[in-house]
Amino acid sequence: MRSERRAPLSVLALVFGLLSASVTAAEATAALEKVRAYREAHAAEIVGELVEWLALPNVATNNVDIQRNAEKLKAMMERRGIRTEILPTLGGRPVVYGELRTPGATSTLLFYGHYDGQSVDVSQWHSPPFEPVLRRGYGGDWATIPFPGPGGRFEDDWRIFARSASDDKSPMVALLAALDALRATGREPRGNLKFLFEGEEEQGSPHLEEFVLREKDRLRADLIVTADGPVHQSGRPTVFFGNRGIMALEITVYGPTENLHSGHYGNWAPNPAMRLAQLLATMKDADGRVTIAGFYEDVDPLTEEERNAIAAIPAIEKKVQERFGIAEPDGGGQRLEEMIALPSLNLRGLRSGYVGEEATTIIPRTATAAIDVRLVKGNDHLRMFEAIVAHIRNQGWTVLDREPTAEERQQHARLVKVGKLDGYNAVRTPLDLPMAATLARAVQRATGGAVVKLPTLGGSGPLHYFDALGLPSVGLPIVNYDNNQHGPDENLRVGNFFQGIDIFASVFLWE
Amino acid sequence: MRSERRAPLSVLALVFGLLSASVTAAEATAALEKVRAYREAHAAEIVGELVEWLALPNVATNNVDIQRNAEKLKAMMERRGIRTEILPTLGGRPVVYGELRTPGATSTLLFYGHYDGQSVDVSQWHSPPFEPVLRRGYGGDWATIPFPGPGGRFEDDWRIFARSASDDKSPMVALLAALDALRATGREPRGNLKFLFEGEEEQGSPHLEEFVLREKDRLRADLIVTADGPVHQSGRPTVFFGNRGIMALEITVYGPTENLHSGHYGNWAPNPAMRLAQLLATMKDADGRVTIAGFYEDVDPLTEEERNAIAAIPAIEKKVQERFGIAEPDGGGQRLEEMIALPSLNLRGLRSGYVGEEATTIIPRTATAAIDVRLVKGNDHLRMFEAIVAHIRNQGWTVLDREPTAEERQQHARLVKVGKLDGYNAVRTPLDLPMAATLARAVQRATGGAVVKLPTLGGSGPLHYFDALGLPSVGLPIVNYDNNQHGPDENLRVGNFFQGIDIFASVFLWE
Repeated sequence: MRSERRAPLSVLALVFGLLSASVTAAEATAALEKVRAYREAHAAEIVGELVEWLALPNVATNNVDIQRNAEKLKAMMERRGIRTEILPTLGGRPVVYGELRTPGATSTLLFYGHYDGQSVDVSQWHSPPFEPVLRRGYGGDWATIPFPGPGGRFEDDWRIFARSASDDKSPMVALLAALDALRATGREPRGNLKFLFEGEEEQGSPHLEEFVLREKDRLRADLIVTADGPVHQSGRPTVFFGNRGIMALEITVYGPTENLHSGHYGNWAPNPAMRLAQLLATMKDADGRVTIAGFYEDVDPLTEEERNAIAAIPAIEKKVQERFGIAEPDGGGQRLEEMIALPSLNLRGLRSGYVGEEATTIIPRTATAAIDVRLVKGNDHLRMFEAIVAHIRNQGWTVLDREPTAEERQQHARLVKVGKLDGYNAVRTPLDLPMAATLARAVQRATGGAVVKLPTLGGSGPLHYFDALGLPSVGLPIVNYDNNQHGPDENLRVGNFFQGIDIFASVFLWE
Repeated sequence: MRSERRAPLSVLALVFGLLSASVTAAEATAALEKVRAYREAHAAEIVGELVEWLALPNVATNNVDIQRNAEKLKAMMERRGIRTEILPTLGGRPVVYGELRTPGATSTLLFYGHYDGQSVDVSQWHSPPFEPVLRRGYGGDWATIPFPGPGGRFEDDWRIFARSASDDKSPMVALLAALDALRATGREPRGNLKFLFEGEEEQGSPHLEEFVLREKDRLRADLIVTADGPVHQSGRPTVFFGNRGIMALEITVYGPTENLHSGHYGNWAPNPAMRLAQLLATMKDADGRVTIAGFYEDVDPLTEEERNAIAAIPAIEKKVQERFGIAEPDGGGQRLEEMIALPSLNLRGLRSGYVGEEATTIIPRTATAAIDVRLVKGNDHLRMFEAIVAHIRNQGWTVLDREPTAEERQQHARLVKVGKLDGYNAVRTPLDLPMAATLARAVQRATGGAVVKLPTLGGSGPLHYFDALGLPSVGLPIVNYDNNQHGPDENLRVGNFFQGIDIFASVFLWE
């Protein structure tokens, strides 16, 4: 496998050589003018296709809904002449897979997206999550407005509210609309296109690895393009070159074998919640820097090109701080983009005893912390887990990977269970890959503005399965960053959607 | 009020003088022999009265059930000629109040108990909580056995399982049975008896203060005797001379205004759960000693008599450690009884984000810790709260008593809400009070063994309301310490119940 990993870079260099000579800049610019004119004239009909699909509930845990979405997507793809199949995964939701071959093409792009959505807490939404509505902003408020009819115009700042409006149905509709628009100019994509649209990304893609390994011949491509995730907070068109990896763990500290009366035993029986707090406090300093030995050791430093790319990104820290009420970020003034190029240790949950109305005067039996660790290029999730366990041992704890026995409880004053959950490593495609420059140029040509080249997205994604096959990947997100993905009132800024169509058409043209 | 507080001590000295001359030791011993014979002959019938009452559900939140329990108790008391009334509280559950006057009596004892019970999680019980059963122990297991019929015998180690079997119906039934037994010897109590049986102790006695103040003339007594709580872990008969006070607070640390994606913002957006852990960790050292300035400052040190009393108590630490799986208690080897004579800071709950199956990759919006502080004589709950707030400020936090505004979030990196819940001070009756020696002697005469004189119980109780009226109080607990009070499978060791009858009869005789 290792030797396979390097192969595509040389292939890409070759492809890049072919592509750079294939369409003149003037021809491309002219074609994109026509693309824009087409999608403006057909805006209502393009949005209509998205809205019709958004009305189909797609919560990943509902098999029947997921199947209906897969069939709908297949029909939408077939309408464009894409040869499409619904392929099973081993025990999971199916993949909608399509191919569009271009006679004489010398390269292949594989687009990744997902048609499942996060679960919904209907009580928290301002309108039902599967009844899409269009809204216009008024100060801090939103007013619902009717969708324009055929030939009608949309303003860029209007938003469509529905589950999966941004994560991740709109990028897939934008891909299909880009194909329509390109064809309206009399052109076809220059390379072969493949589409892998997953049905359980929001479940952590539990069956994707098996699928990718089994279907690796079919999936052969020169580059994976992820059509998922938000653009940079600056609002600028964005290409990202990697995802952070992730590793989750859970730490449970043991107190008395049953909840004890805090009066009869308080300040004699040790309190597991306090001891957990004391243990956690050793893991980060006051500025949020992780103090676990070796935590930052394996990190592949940013290359000069990556550092330059970050330097070229407009600073959005103040805006994000205001948006989310953050007086002072961790990191001592480092850029957000620099910080996400480092591994992070995030305390995502704490549970012990009871708080609020449920609080009772007890010394709790146990205290649990849930942690996620984001990994960057160079980190290994197993090695990172071992570093954390070693740190806990160094604080004087006896570390188990299971519940302690009665004897162990009698013997060890500081007893902790540390369980590792899933984990995978980061993926980062070199910024100086020729294809990267080509893609960035395609995006820039479509949008006219400066492109944010992000060495890595902060989030994690299933691209490591492709990485293991030696397939490099980049991300082409199109949706607004403040889209409330995963939460209530998920939304899509329509200006982002239309710009996404231009971007994908430009990529089809240039690839 | 202050001047009233000292008055009863001189009254008590007088009473003690009268009492000590009133019954000879030989007469008392002979009477107690007859008491024992009576309750052995009538064991099935005495237990029967308890079991019948235990079958009446008494969860404090069910008004109808509480009312039925009050009426049942009133009938049981009236059967003994106790003049009984169901007295309302202001908006709460009623008090069952009774008086039994003895012609020519020069002193009055007021017994306190409560007829409400803790809520039940039926799924956690081995038998329904309001269908009392008798069980015999087999190694670690329990086998259900039939209740003996009239004239039948009970073994001391058998246990009755039901909600309120120990907390607190059995002490009240034991008081009434002691009266029957004493009368069977041809004697009446030597002093006046008053009974105040509360119906919302498990709710924190929210209306008792108002009741005690309003009815203070009626409640006049020389000593309050609490018939509640467990005997010392050694199993020895116990008299306690105080309760710890209590003060509860809740600390909430603020993170971003909404849960943020831990990938996109992890190690840049500050994590409130980690910051809470870091703050809590400053409050105790590794041995569990509180490191808040002034925390131990106001403590009234134990008197020599109290220290001697503790020294005379058998050491039960090893046994309790084995029972609850504690390898090494806090306090560096100090006695449990010494530790509960100090204030405690107990972390009773932690909540932030999610753990286990619910865990998601977010930076939580908030993190909350629920704390209870047990207070001892000398502490003031308001002063203690201020000391904790001052400590938090000294760690660089801005402390609010409400949710922060959007502006405050922008201005202060370390923002915390600290809310004080209920609180009251400790009560401790001097061990060298003459009445104390009298009571201890009465208990010893009834049981033959050494009596544990506990300067303070670890738990808190509503006695401070009586303390405010200048009424001294002691506790005469009778039930086994491992009774699972408040939890599932609450139980009463029948040997404790029968011994309790002897103890109360002896106290009636001597008072």
